[in-house]
Amino acid sequence: MSLTPSSAITEILAVGRRLDARGLAPATTGNYSVRLNDGCIAVTVSGRHKGRLDQDDVTQIDLDGRALHAKPPSAEAVLHACVYRLYARVQAVLHVHSMPSITLTRVLPRGSDVVLEGYETLKILPGVTTHDTRVVIPVFENSQDMPALARVVEDRLVTLQPAPSALLLRGHGLYAWGATVEEAEHVVEALELMMSCELETLRVGRT
Amino acid sequence: MSLTPSSAITEILAVGRRLDARGLAPATTGNYSVRLNDGCIAVTVSGRHKGRLDQDDVTQIDLDGRALHAKPPSAEAVLHACVYRLYARVQAVLHVHSMPSITLTRVLPRGSDVVLEGYETLKILPGVTTHDTRVVIPVFENSQDMPALARVVEDRLVTLQPAPSALLLRGHGLYAWGATVEEAEHVVEALELMMSCELETLRVGRT
Amino acid sequence: MSLTPSSAITEILAVGRRLDARGLAPATTGNYSVRLNDGCIAVTVSGRHKGRLDQDDVTQIDLDGRALHAKPPSAEAVLHACVYRLYARVQAVLHVHSMPSITLTRVLPRGSDVVLEGYETLKILPGVTTHDTRVVIPVFENSQDMPALARVVEDRLVTLQPAPSALLLRGHGLYAWGATVEEAEHVVEALELMMSCELETLRVGRT
Amino acid sequence: MSLTPSSAITEILAVGRRLDARGLAPATTGNYSVRLNDGCIAVTVSGRHKGRLDQDDVTQIDLDGRALHAKPPSAEAVLHACVYRLYARVQAVLHVHSMPSITLTRVLPRGSDVVLEGYETLKILPGVTTHDTRVVIPVFENSQDMPALARVVEDRLVTLQPAPSALLLRGHGLYAWGATVEEAEHVVEALELMMSCELETLRVGRT
Repeated sequence: MSLTPSSAITEILAVGRRLDARGLAPATTGNYSVRLNDGCIAVTVSGRHKGRLDQDDVTQIDLDGRALHAKPPSAEAVLHACVYRLYARVQAVLHVHSMPSITLTRVLPRGSDVVLEGYETLKILPGVTTHDTRVVIPVFENSQDMPALARVVEDRLVTLQPAPSALLLRGHGLYAWGATVEEAEHVVEALELMMSCELETLRVGRT
Repeated sequence: MSLTPSSAITEILAVGRRLDARGLAPATTGNYSVRLNDGCIAVTVSGRHKGRLDQDDVTQIDLDGRALHAKPPSAEAVLHACVYRLYARVQAVLHVHSMPSITLTRVLPRGSDVVLEGYETLKILPGVTTHDTRVVIPVFENSQDMPALARVVEDRLVTLQPAPSALLLRGHGLYAWGATVEEAEHVVEALELMMSCELETLRVGRT
Repeated sequence: MSLTPSSAITEILAVGRRLDARGLAPATTGNYSVRLNDGCIAVTVSGRHKGRLDQDDVTQIDLDGRALHAKPPSAEAVLHACVYRLYARVQAVLHVHSMPSITLTRVLPRGSDVVLEGYETLKILPGVTTHDTRVVIPVFENSQDMPALARVVEDRLVTLQPAPSALLLRGHGLYAWGATVEEAEHVVEALELMMSCELETLRVGRT
Repeated sequence: MSLTPSSAITEILAVGRRLDARGLAPATTGNYSVRLNDGCIAVTVSGRHKGRLDQDDVTQIDLDGRALHAKPPSAEAVLHACVYRLYARVQAVLHVHSMPSITLTRVLPRGSDVVLEGYETLKILPGVTTHDTRVVIPVFENSQDMPALARVVEDRLVTLQPAPSALLLRGHGLYAWGATVEEAEHVVEALELMMSCELETLRVGRT
């Protein structure tokens, strides 16, 4: 899609309102970004409610995650930049905090990834054409040293084939991406549904 | 009800917005159809968000599930056609992915159907006049070979008396139908409520 | 409050939209009534979605539950009439099907009532002035013979002191009442919250 | 922020509508306050639905919790006053009843506080800069003697370093505060998310 700054802002504000309406933007959690047609990245600033963003709440970074404007981006913008560097097809990255993504990564043994298997909804993920498969969503330990975390993430993502559409930070939340804002949003919604099914299965399945 | 194409489109768009508002249309999941007054079937295309459909997102198939227009229907349209062939009274079919329908079919032993018993809400289902009964919602193994799955579904549905108002695909979701879009929607809502009660009972009842 | 028929209809339509927005009116479940200033009762007809009622969906009964108009009321209208006969202060009765009310009455041993103890939210119930109390919500076996059920309900309610603000039908749902539509609605919301806490405690508390 | 009475009322009505939309204002539960620029406190009256407040539903107290107007405040206004006396930076206090806050305080052993550890969402709380920490939300026994409870609360809060942003009353609900209504609202939303994760972990984690 590759957008102008003003259309990127319009898309980011709209997706914030939609994610908030689905309960995926409590307090000031989350951050969202879009790749611009000049190769830079529009990304939300820190500390704002994502369901009530205005156009001043979006700033710009370059592909190395460096701030291009006076308004500083979220510290997590370096993770967004990392995803754009790795995957040329990705034009949008969405990060949300949600009960399923936080809890599932906390109750799984440390070091485990989230493995989704046999769900028809897996076909929402780009490149997945059958439910009869096994999709791994890599889980990383959370960190406050975002540049260091971005290196860890990049080192692992490059080894994964096929390229994932999402990652999880333990006790923190979900990053999802796609070729458009809409595709990234669909990945978020599909994974939230499947992660809630995984938690429900853990609760119920211990019969 | 038996509708013209344009009133069918209006109904399909409206029910998509309502199901989405209830959390029953995450990402691009689900598909919806209506029998037209010329005997053909209006059905949603693939890959669109069902809460934000526009009129170009509805196409047509015949009763054998063959595409009648350039826009291809969802691959699952053959399942819709199967339901219309079997049940002359059915004028609308709705398919949704939801946490209860996906999880319940995954935690039950493979080969089990969902059995609902003693719920007053059963009386929402067409033909059910008392809570003091036992309603079986047949569960089928999911498949990516939709024509083959449609044959399996048809072979079993014809044997079921009384005719069911819904079926489940394991790890996939719910199909529900009725004499109007509204009746099919009521079947969806009633079954979602009762399946959520079933899951809650599994969680709680193991005291 | 004691209303004219037209203001009663306005109140019933409005409370239906609010309960539906809270997820308390799936499919065509529930029915609502208001005592009129001539001593008759306005009550919803059967088979309509309670979030989308129009003025033709309200009819009238007398205090014995007999239909006064051509449009027949819900079969459960005799339960509404029973509550109005017993309690002069009651001007509105609301009945809803919800996951907590259905599941809690199904997982408790048959014959048990729902007992709520120690909740601050109990003070929402008329006449309750402290959390440090024990409120019994009587549970009745569901029946399709509504006149017989109404007699069973009446026989038991007259013995209960203080007068309850609600009752439950097993596997069916909640009846709540109050001196106004708003008070009855508050009883519904307070009990839904406390019943969801009870279920959560059953799930969690078996450590 | 420090507001005029009329802007305080505007803020209180708006936050009530937002909390209600998130399901955090059932029946007439909760109460909200704002510090005014003359040092007094605007606070909601009792018995009104917090999602449908109008400007007559806000009254004023002084810092000792004494009513300044004919309309009496909620009995819990003395707890709001206590928070404003202790913490000069606090300009808004929000109190809500919710399933997680009620249930979590009931299932924990009596006398336990809620301890949150390792959540990225902790950084929403003022003064918290890393997930790698342990935040204690003090839990107090509920009481109907609000002045006595306010003394117990004050005696304990003064001993807590760093100053908490919230407290819980057992079986009752959450009090949260901040330098603005918005900051207090963010504390509510962040704690509701983390408490729902804690409950989910209790359910799931007993593998």
